[in-house]
Amino acid sequence: MRLLEDRIRRDGVIKAGDILKVDSFLNHQIDVAFVSRLGEEFHRLYRGCGVNKILTIEASGIGIACLTAQFFGCPVVFAKKAKTKNISSDVWSAEAVSYTHGGTSTVIVSKEFLSDKDRLLIIDDFLANGAAITALASIAEQAGAAVVGAGIVIEKAYQPGGAMLRARGMRIESLARIKSMDEKDGFTFCD
Amino acid sequence: MRLLEDRIRRDGVIKAGDILKVDSFLNHQIDVAFVSRLGEEFHRLYRGCGVNKILTIEASGIGIACLTAQFFGCPVVFAKKAKTKNISSDVWSAEAVSYTHGGTSTVIVSKEFLSDKDRLLIIDDFLANGAAITALASIAEQAGAAVVGAGIVIEKAYQPGGAMLRARGMRIESLARIKSMDEKDGFTFCD
Repeated sequence: MRLLEDRIRRDGVIKAGDILKVDSFLNHQIDVAFVSRLGEEFHRLYRGCGVNKILTIEASGIGIACLTAQFFGCPVVFAKKAKTKNISSDVWSAEAVSYTHGGTSTVIVSKEFLSDKDRLLIIDDFLANGAAITALASIAEQAGAAVVGAGIVIEKAYQPGGAMLRARGMRIESLARIKSMDEKDGFTFCD
Repeated sequence: MRLLEDRIRRDGVIKAGDILKVDSFLNHQIDVAFVSRLGEEFHRLYRGCGVNKILTIEASGIGIACLTAQFFGCPVVFAKKAKTKNISSDVWSAEAVSYTHGGTSTVIVSKEFLSDKDRLLIIDDFLANGAAITALASIAEQAGAAVVGAGIVIEKAYQPGGAMLRARGMRIESLARIKSMDEKDGFTFCD
């Protein structure tokens, strides 16, 4: 999506350690009008797929998911990061390894909000090693819900997550796919 | 707001320990169409106040803030809960005592996203003891930003936060003000 690639080139900041900061418009400050256009694009890609619910993960996914859900006319469910090791039997849970913060976290969704009647679109801001999407897909599977696909704002295509998930048969639509990025030379996007 | 009071009566679940669960429509599953109507009401209350940015706090505030921001045509900034004790000099920070989880957390906002040119509307899902709103107001003050007021979805009016903040001169608009709630007798709202 050209609009997004241009925005990343303009406002994205590359930091040492393969960090891309897009917090001026996506995940700290949110340019709501702009993100709504991303949501419209997710709807164009997934309309007609019977999506009845959007599944995302706190915190960065929530705004994108809500602005996308308006086009589908459906609710959002956001997975929470568990604050304790004691996981209640009322929730579905899965492990996710955070790429940015390191360490493993347990993500949970109350059982009452997902069922085998659901056709889910998974939304997230980044796809790198695929841990968050894998955890959300695991939760969907436990609930018996169908996953129509995932809508990702920015995929680091040089990281293994996208290829791994596609090889498993999951439809992944990433609005910008970064082929490489470098503090000196900037961004190259996949064609 | 009658629409919200009715929804709380229908779907809110009162638990021991003064817990009100509204996670079927507000802060785990999000009824996006419904929350958008809350956002429209915040806009009705605060339009003409020169709001140019909405300030909220992760995670539950983000969806409400984004859906509200669409009516104002402005961006959202969400404060983050610091993951480490080492607070960078690039952020404004303040302490907040969580009512639901207990314990103190440090909330932070990057300095680049708030300035003395901003006129902020603070948005959050709950107001009880006022800790989150106080922390956000402190961050706004550090940045030199004006706080036009706060828009709260549900105020526990029998808790001290609302009165304390109003006594300090902050405009607080709560869409539902719970006078009392009880597992047996249900909800009473302020007139």
